[in-house]
Amino acid sequence: MGFDLGTTLQKMNILSDTDETSVAAITLFVTLLCACIVIGHLLEENRWMNESITALLIGVCTGVGILLISGGKSSRLLIFSEDLFFIYLLPPIIFNAGFQVKKKQFFRNFSTIMLFGAIGTLISFVVISLGAIGLLQQIDINLSIGEYLALGAIFAATDSVCTLQVLNQDETPLLYSLVFGEGVVNDATSVVLFNAVQNLDLTHINTTIALELFGNFLYLFITSTILGVVAGLLSAYVIKMLYFGRHSTDREVAIMMLLAYLSYMLSELFNLSAILTVFFCGIVMSHYTWHNVTENSRVTTKHTFATLSFVAEIFIFLYVGMDALDIEKWRIVSSSLKTSISVSGILLGLVLVGRAAFIFPLSFLSNLTKKSPNEKIDFKKQITIWWAGLMRGAVSMALAYKQFTSSGHTNVRDNAIMITSTIIVVLFSTVVFGLITKPLVRFLLPSSKQLTRMISSEPVTSHTITPPLLGGEQDSLTDLYGQSIANGPTSEASGVGQNVPRPNSLRMLLSPRTIHYYWRKFDNAFMRPVFGGRGFVPFVPGSPTERSVHHFVEELEKAERTLN
Amino acid sequence: MGFDLGTTLQKMNILSDTDETSVAAITLFVTLLCACIVIGHLLEENRWMNESITALLIGVCTGVGILLISGGKSSRLLIFSEDLFFIYLLPPIIFNAGFQVKKKQFFRNFSTIMLFGAIGTLISFVVISLGAIGLLQQIDINLSIGEYLALGAIFAATDSVCTLQVLNQDETPLLYSLVFGEGVVNDATSVVLFNAVQNLDLTHINTTIALELFGNFLYLFITSTILGVVAGLLSAYVIKMLYFGRHSTDREVAIMMLLAYLSYMLSELFNLSAILTVFFCGIVMSHYTWHNVTENSRVTTKHTFATLSFVAEIFIFLYVGMDALDIEKWRIVSSSLKTSISVSGILLGLVLVGRAAFIFPLSFLSNLTKKSPNEKIDFKKQITIWWAGLMRGAVSMALAYKQFTSSGHTNVRDNAIMITSTIIVVLFSTVVFGLITKPLVRFLLPSSKQLTRMISSEPVTSHTITPPLLGGEQDSLTDLYGQSIANGPTSEASGVGQNVPRPNSLRMLLSPRTIHYYWRKFDNAFMRPVFGGRGFVPFVPGSPTERSVHHFVEELEKAERTLN
Repeated sequence: MGFDLGTTLQKMNILSDTDETSVAAITLFVTLLCACIVIGHLLEENRWMNESITALLIGVCTGVGILLISGGKSSRLLIFSEDLFFIYLLPPIIFNAGFQVKKKQFFRNFSTIMLFGAIGTLISFVVISLGAIGLLQQIDINLSIGEYLALGAIFAATDSVCTLQVLNQDETPLLYSLVFGEGVVNDATSVVLFNAVQNLDLTHINTTIALELFGNFLYLFITSTILGVVAGLLSAYVIKMLYFGRHSTDREVAIMMLLAYLSYMLSELFNLSAILTVFFCGIVMSHYTWHNVTENSRVTTKHTFATLSFVAEIFIFLYVGMDALDIEKWRIVSSSLKTSISVSGILLGLVLVGRAAFIFPLSFLSNLTKKSPNEKIDFKKQITIWWAGLMRGAVSMALAYKQFTSSGHTNVRDNAIMITSTIIVVLFSTVVFGLITKPLVRFLLPSSKQLTRMISSEPVTSHTITPPLLGGEQDSLTDLYGQSIANGPTSEASGVGQNVPRPNSLRMLLSPRTIHYYWRKFDNAFMRPVFGGRGFVPFVPGSPTERSVHHFVEELEKAERTLN
Repeated sequence: MGFDLGTTLQKMNILSDTDETSVAAITLFVTLLCACIVIGHLLEENRWMNESITALLIGVCTGVGILLISGGKSSRLLIFSEDLFFIYLLPPIIFNAGFQVKKKQFFRNFSTIMLFGAIGTLISFVVISLGAIGLLQQIDINLSIGEYLALGAIFAATDSVCTLQVLNQDETPLLYSLVFGEGVVNDATSVVLFNAVQNLDLTHINTTIALELFGNFLYLFITSTILGVVAGLLSAYVIKMLYFGRHSTDREVAIMMLLAYLSYMLSELFNLSAILTVFFCGIVMSHYTWHNVTENSRVTTKHTFATLSFVAEIFIFLYVGMDALDIEKWRIVSSSLKTSISVSGILLGLVLVGRAAFIFPLSFLSNLTKKSPNEKIDFKKQITIWWAGLMRGAVSMALAYKQFTSSGHTNVRDNAIMITSTIIVVLFSTVVFGLITKPLVRFLLPSSKQLTRMISSEPVTSHTITPPLLGGEQDSLTDLYGQSIANGPTSEASGVGQNVPRPNSLRMLLSPRTIHYYWRKFDNAFMRPVFGGRGFVPFVPGSPTERSVHHFVEELEKAERTLN
């Protein structure tokens, strides 16, 4: 039923620890989730609000309500738990993002995404850390050098969840894939930075340590990706070989969910970037596994993953909203409320500057490598990308709690100020920046739908170019594509064969499109025969492709009868 | 992703309490779940094994493995948590049972189910309690009178989960609905009995207390049912009025899940029988809500609920299996292992006798009220019903821990013996009785498929009887049924109109079929126009019935394209 939800709630220890109140807390939380969904639905057509902000505001209101009922005494109203967030709420969100992402768009912009996600986050981290060292000391905040660097890592971590809410994959596919892709890579970078800051001897930073950090990042990125890909391929192989659907659709759904979650947990266990792992696991699963299961399982997994992700997102914002009233910390900082607000202001400014410091220069660099003006990121788009990634969310919150409290508690004034400032930054950036993003996108990119479509899809003129790289293999390739097309009119299969570029330079040979072409060939020749995928599961007896739509309709009717 | 699973695992505290091992424990558990699913799939055609037994055995093996690795030191290997079981694992299982149950079959046998579930459980409770008082004292076990009565309640609680696994709803619908229905009502009775034993002053039992208990049961049964029905109707009404599907299928799925879970938690909060509540919520949701959502949501909810239930079931058996090696208690009883085995034997015997003591007499009573020989429960069926309800499972385990330990710990020898004996009874009854049930059903009811079909469906001869109760309203009724049939060829709608019995006696007037007829009329006239349901949601713009199958196929193709 309420999957993640229920269990996790128990950790919140609302008011007291007894069973009765734990049940009451879960009941309250589930009720609030229902309210958020209904209100979110009613506000769907509203141009300002989105579900995150609704949940955040409902959370804050409920927090105030509980505080008033308990007579302001429940200082431990809610304890923010990093475990709850990282182990139970984040995996479904990121997995679903990988599962539903437009893979073509994502891999075409891969170099820009890596540039923003890795180098950009590093720049942002440096700017925020240096700014914090320079500015915070002036307003009577004394932190160690390690803590300043941790602040940099905390506020360099963008909120991928909120990005998913403010940008629309269908309306602005380029921006969506850039900002969201950056967010995923950003996570790997943040993890490396945050762990590095906590583990390395930071009193003397030199080139060796910098190289070590870079090597660490590469190792983390590659191993995390491989783990996710392996988990995805394993699920595809197991389902293709054993053909679960013969006995039960439920086993297919269960094994997909469990293997995806397993990849996340294994990654956590090995101290890798679990977000990267589960993201790539989602991509692989949607490319292979999803095509190996029955029609019913396809519909079920697609919507179940989306629903889980949706509920987890609302849950997080509701939780962050309720958590904002952490009376214990607010009491400690109440004497220096002005300082806390100043710190929040400084941090918000640094977040703005830190992001600007890499979006504009790196966009310029990225534009240099692109020839077609349509592929370049113009200034208006740069502003949108800059703005859409400003939100700080539960990741920052979780990291701040990890750095400045010991299991949620602190008595040190400066640490309490850091926690309350983080809360203010998260609330302000999510609500204010979040509210402005939708109208901003509409203002800056008024015909965004048209514009991005022009950029994202292959230019129509290139359709007539003969692919010179094909040589004698053209026939067999056409065969393969023909087969793909026969199994469903998908834009991917029909687009690629026609768009292999002229090999007029080495750059073109290594361009994403050529790479994509070779990948397709490899995929069709080696991967799909083993792991399944669209058009490659026709020989298993009783497999999905054998079963006609007619059969599916029969199933649906049978299900209706069973249920009555 | 792994919804329920993950979070709950943290409570297990495998080996130590640090984050690292908690992650390791979750990883291990998810891996085991995957293994159970794959092995269960491979053993599907095996006539002896089922998924429960597989999971139980894998659990025990893993427990042994961990014990050996830790050098026998991890006495607190796993702590059985009632919360984990009652709050997170049981709801999806029981809800799904209500959601997928054959409603017609269930309500037709309602009186027999109530007889077995309420009176039967009481008889079983009395037999086991008296037997325990008489026999256990002879082998040097000294418990208070309250504890003996608690033992009666603990072992009168049948395991509905295991029943679902050994009986097949399609092959033996009558037996399935009787045994499973009894299990659900049994839960309400057990809760009343167990709570009564813990709260009432049991030193002087008199008629007032007995009446009080009976009133308590009635109150519990009625309020729990009403709560479930209201939650189900609320979900139907909200989804019908707001038409979530217009914006997002995911909201529909989420709201159905959350409202179902909310009904369970509210019931827990008010100390009602949450199992009864969520069971009826499932029935109402499948009757109304399910018909108000989009086709995608229908497929998704049907399979998601089944998958969640399936995973939760495996989880429970895996957990019970691992929990069997509760070294702390085994150490305490090691000096009196013989006593513990004797106690287990006595309890197993009492369970056998206690169930026999009500199945055979009450079946005789039930047969007296039936006229047709086809509707009577013959001796072979009585034996099957008796045997299929012998398994004791996680409910008994949870109640035993509640009674004989304080948050999982105990140092009293007799209490430890009770825990280990419960574990033995649960393992033995699940594995041995469970293994025998499938072959037994096949042996006793060789043509069970044919037989039960004859009993469950209306006799063919009665099809020609004119329903005399219809009077002038016959036309409008035919209209209604016609509409229902037009919306899908369902056995329910087409069967009922023809089978209203002759009103040759008052008994016939009040017979389940007549009641069913009036219910259908009421349902069609008042309920469905308000809450939707099959054939009653054609006027909402863009509602499921408007969207053709063709549209659905388009959606599926679109989804395929999106995912690639």
